[in-house]
Amino acid sequence: MTDVETRHDALDEFIARYSNWERWGRDDQCGTANHITPAMVRDAAGLVRTGQVVSLALNFDQSGPQTGANGRFNCLRYSVATGSDHEMGRQMWAGGPIPRQMGYADDTVVLHLQSATHWDSLCHIFHKGRMYNGHPASEFTAQGGRRNGTEALKSKLVGRGVLLDIPRSKGVEWLEDGYAITVEDLEAAAEHGKVSVGDGDMLLLRTGQMARCFEQGWGTYAGGNAPGLSFYTIPWLAEHNVAAVASDTWGVEVRPNELPDSFQPFHIPTVVYMGLLLGEMFNLEALSEACADDGTYEMLVSAPPLPFTGTAGGPPGPVAIR
Amino acid sequence: MTDVETRHDALDEFIARYSNWERWGRDDQCGTANHITPAMVRDAAGLVRTGQVVSLALNFDQSGPQTGANGRFNCLRYSVATGSDHEMGRQMWAGGPIPRQMGYADDTVVLHLQSATHWDSLCHIFHKGRMYNGHPASEFTAQGGRRNGTEALKSKLVGRGVLLDIPRSKGVEWLEDGYAITVEDLEAAAEHGKVSVGDGDMLLLRTGQMARCFEQGWGTYAGGNAPGLSFYTIPWLAEHNVAAVASDTWGVEVRPNELPDSFQPFHIPTVVYMGLLLGEMFNLEALSEACADDGTYEMLVSAPPLPFTGTAGGPPGPVAIR
Amino acid sequence: MTDVETRHDALDEFIARYSNWERWGRDDQCGTANHITPAMVRDAAGLVRTGQVVSLALNFDQSGPQTGANGRFNCLRYSVATGSDHEMGRQMWAGGPIPRQMGYADDTVVLHLQSATHWDSLCHIFHKGRMYNGHPASEFTAQGGRRNGTEALKSKLVGRGVLLDIPRSKGVEWLEDGYAITVEDLEAAAEHGKVSVGDGDMLLLRTGQMARCFEQGWGTYAGGNAPGLSFYTIPWLAEHNVAAVASDTWGVEVRPNELPDSFQPFHIPTVVYMGLLLGEMFNLEALSEACADDGTYEMLVSAPPLPFTGTAGGPPGPVAIR
Amino acid sequence: MTDVETRHDALDEFIARYSNWERWGRDDQCGTANHITPAMVRDAAGLVRTGQVVSLALNFDQSGPQTGANGRFNCLRYSVATGSDHEMGRQMWAGGPIPRQMGYADDTVVLHLQSATHWDSLCHIFHKGRMYNGHPASEFTAQGGRRNGTEALKSKLVGRGVLLDIPRSKGVEWLEDGYAITVEDLEAAAEHGKVSVGDGDMLLLRTGQMARCFEQGWGTYAGGNAPGLSFYTIPWLAEHNVAAVASDTWGVEVRPNELPDSFQPFHIPTVVYMGLLLGEMFNLEALSEACADDGTYEMLVSAPPLPFTGTAGGPPGPVAIR
Repeated sequence: MTDVETRHDALDEFIARYSNWERWGRDDQCGTANHITPAMVRDAAGLVRTGQVVSLALNFDQSGPQTGANGRFNCLRYSVATGSDHEMGRQMWAGGPIPRQMGYADDTVVLHLQSATHWDSLCHIFHKGRMYNGHPASEFTAQGGRRNGTEALKSKLVGRGVLLDIPRSKGVEWLEDGYAITVEDLEAAAEHGKVSVGDGDMLLLRTGQMARCFEQGWGTYAGGNAPGLSFYTIPWLAEHNVAAVASDTWGVEVRPNELPDSFQPFHIPTVVYMGLLLGEMFNLEALSEACADDGTYEMLVSAPPLPFTGTAGGPPGPVAIR
Repeated sequence: MTDVETRHDALDEFIARYSNWERWGRDDQCGTANHITPAMVRDAAGLVRTGQVVSLALNFDQSGPQTGANGRFNCLRYSVATGSDHEMGRQMWAGGPIPRQMGYADDTVVLHLQSATHWDSLCHIFHKGRMYNGHPASEFTAQGGRRNGTEALKSKLVGRGVLLDIPRSKGVEWLEDGYAITVEDLEAAAEHGKVSVGDGDMLLLRTGQMARCFEQGWGTYAGGNAPGLSFYTIPWLAEHNVAAVASDTWGVEVRPNELPDSFQPFHIPTVVYMGLLLGEMFNLEALSEACADDGTYEMLVSAPPLPFTGTAGGPPGPVAIR
Repeated sequence: MTDVETRHDALDEFIARYSNWERWGRDDQCGTANHITPAMVRDAAGLVRTGQVVSLALNFDQSGPQTGANGRFNCLRYSVATGSDHEMGRQMWAGGPIPRQMGYADDTVVLHLQSATHWDSLCHIFHKGRMYNGHPASEFTAQGGRRNGTEALKSKLVGRGVLLDIPRSKGVEWLEDGYAITVEDLEAAAEHGKVSVGDGDMLLLRTGQMARCFEQGWGTYAGGNAPGLSFYTIPWLAEHNVAAVASDTWGVEVRPNELPDSFQPFHIPTVVYMGLLLGEMFNLEALSEACADDGTYEMLVSAPPLPFTGTAGGPPGPVAIR
Repeated sequence: MTDVETRHDALDEFIARYSNWERWGRDDQCGTANHITPAMVRDAAGLVRTGQVVSLALNFDQSGPQTGANGRFNCLRYSVATGSDHEMGRQMWAGGPIPRQMGYADDTVVLHLQSATHWDSLCHIFHKGRMYNGHPASEFTAQGGRRNGTEALKSKLVGRGVLLDIPRSKGVEWLEDGYAITVEDLEAAAEHGKVSVGDGDMLLLRTGQMARCFEQGWGTYAGGNAPGLSFYTIPWLAEHNVAAVASDTWGVEVRPNELPDSFQPFHIPTVVYMGLLLGEMFNLEALSEACADDGTYEMLVSAPPLPFTGTAGGPPGPVAIR
């Protein structure tokens, strides 16, 4: 048996070995976010030392990474009311002018929920007609998802965050596209940060790809090649009871993909079977600086997604509180 | 001089007395969020006792309060990819089928940023052609705001939260529409919660109106009459260096409004001049239960808005961490 | 056998008898629009006597009939550039000011294609997993329709129009909701207009419901009860080789529906099997006046839908040319 | 005085000489479309010889020319209901299943009104704070235009069309970007088509740029360089009482522009002062073939825009009827 064939088989093997279907009951919609217990949240709050708050979000606007491919575009914003109209005396509310020389602005956005910083919810990926916890994929219709939607996570994804800054631990500016992050890399980065990864942790996985894009332009960032987790880190993630992995790439996992005839195969055992929460396009640049400055790589993270009902993903207003 | 005239005059008086323009520099875009220092964030983290996380958000969907009036509608959601298509073998990615029997769902939302739980950013309200910190209102064009947009707040609005549960402190289910909450009410609610309001606090102001709507339907909730802060609480808010007030109503302040010939006049001295951050349509029901259960009315709140660039408001994924 | 049972059976009977699947070839996507030959278009042009042009469209704006039910809402419009911004000197193009004191306005609309005046394309209705010409319904995915989309009709639906003004021929202002228009009514209206209905005609079927709504408000117009064609007019429409029926109601057919346990059953034999083009929410009020004035009820109609690729419906800019 | 200076001056000169403000009354919103009289429409109908109908529209979809620059993007389409959901038995209407094994599809589009084939309405361009007929530009606010919106044209732009096929009359495949079409070119193309241009004509101006893009890709088509009308054709257009000019380019006029320090200067005297209706991104390829085949370059054109209320532009379902 060749090595490639062995690797091919790992998909089924990992599914069989690491599935969490029914682990937290038939009605669970939160997957590995269940690893975070209240005690862990309390302990994570105890990690706050200076009170510094660092945003982990990209701004939502036309400067984002999307190209329109696969229906994913950068956030469109429209003014429903403007200050120019107010200054020109042209603004109305409920059909009349606003008294007391008052004016206002309002906006509407058209937002693809996977277009910038977001969590994949547990109805984002299907395998063989099923989603997390075994529900039929066809429950996600043109009307959205009946289960496993983003709203299920609205009080989740608060807890201990650990920054695994792979390029910094390797002494490079960024990982190259196609670089597959190994278990050894993860452990070296933990050691570099003087942290150990444990139950219920939210891993903030920095590859440096976004730093490169900030310098060189987005290019094929959205949907293209990327550094990222090797498919073969799945056992380590499962055995450490990791609650979530949020990365600075579009898809967390390495591209080109490691399995033959596959597309983002890491998503199958993790999202569909483990119910692992994956965060994508998190902006970890300021956090990387902050952690390097004071040598502290663990923190309280608050990153519940906005509860867009029945959606396959949702942007949070994520922060590291240090 | 009649009492009505006295009150009328208070608008200019409060503006003159409580304006924070240039208090935090010409370039400041965060207003009273500046009251929150890192040390306060650290101390707020120390308030976490059990690790309970309570969401303060409404879900974003068609069940929301909006009617379409004034261009405000409940969040529209569209499936860009569905599980039904996957199950039918009809799903494509980049023009071809997805290997390994994998499928996915994606969504786009059309979201009016003031339609459900959100913060007003400091370019939301204008007065006499000016916005917070004295910039011309006309800086907010069809392209959005150049300054004071929501993105300025993306690492703000994390700190100590204090629930002021007015109906519970009064022993009623909810306040009636038109009820003007006074300084005495605020202080009684603080006393009821055994907390004192201080510098940099984020006040979570529960009126119970949303509880009533959950029971009786939204009715005229959006844009209509409501219980809320009296215009005359402004001195108290300013003198206590409050960082933010988030309420369970559409506009924080009482409606019908107290000043003659006015529309939401409380917003003028607060948003335009003080730079006070107002949170609207926060869902405080679960928090009210939690606080009543254990008698603890102070907590860590994490509620930075999503950084929609140049917008007049932005939804957070707000949580109380207790 | 009761009368109701007989009528119940008519669904299968009409499908069997009047299906046009493969009549115009396996690749046809235009259905009964094929009844219109170039010679008929030429002859229809010969009907133009005064050169009067009458629009048959509702305006697309927030004053439309929709309520948001079933995801159908009135057209949203956003300014991408405004005259206020131009006047305030705030307008930019490509990052800079526009020379020569020039300015511009631009807009984006969010439009549900069935929300106002539109044609149903031949992928709008399915029956037993099939659409017109026998193609699987599942060809219409989250990506839209591969076949029978609106774009197939972009040079169709030009030809002879005949106004059948039912209320006027009956001497009433409008038909009541629930009134089922019969073959006798159609023929009486044709006689009233001194026209005969023939091959390739586009029937403009006025019920007066829209006139009533203009007077009394939309109420339950969208999706509710309505006057309209009886299910039992199908043989007559098929035998006359009618090209299209455009009405002033939301669904052409009578509501409540005549068949037990059914919802808009007329749509099944007509749209799915005959490929009959149905036009909905056409504004026939001005045309009704014009035809009554000069007694001429036949005309050239030009009403090709906008070619929104792969869509289930499309609005035209429809005109009667008289 | 240099030649450049002379040309510079032509802007003010043409404005002064050719303005139609108040020509058709203070309330007119249709500009040169008023040149088309009913008698002309009747006569145009008499030009129909074979009954051939040729669409002049691009399809509205993601394959269009836009890049997102200046807020202009290709039409987004979303399925509100799908055939896959129907086949999977997952489709609902009004909260329940649809009886009789019936299903349906519905769609919503997000459409920038200038993104593909469209007319500029007479509130699209401003000059010195004014729009057509002298109204203040600031009437076009975040709420759209109070006057001169697209809805004013809903029964207009039907009449005699004349194809001026410049490349064919010159014996070339297409005009190069930057080529300024002169009066001589227009007259040569008319002669080539054996037509004379007269009062109320709608000129269909083919440059061949779109043919080149169909062969070579859109490239910088949207907003970039293009062949098009010379600024100095304005007197000829005005003196011939042309009703409209619709071209196969994004902006009708030549780019780079001929006047120093200017951007699309042709639009100023024409749209703002003459009220000339300009059609952009019309697909004239099939029409060019048809006219070359039978040597007939005049026809009935029906191209009223969809009446999107208060908008700066609107797509028609335009057809040539021959």
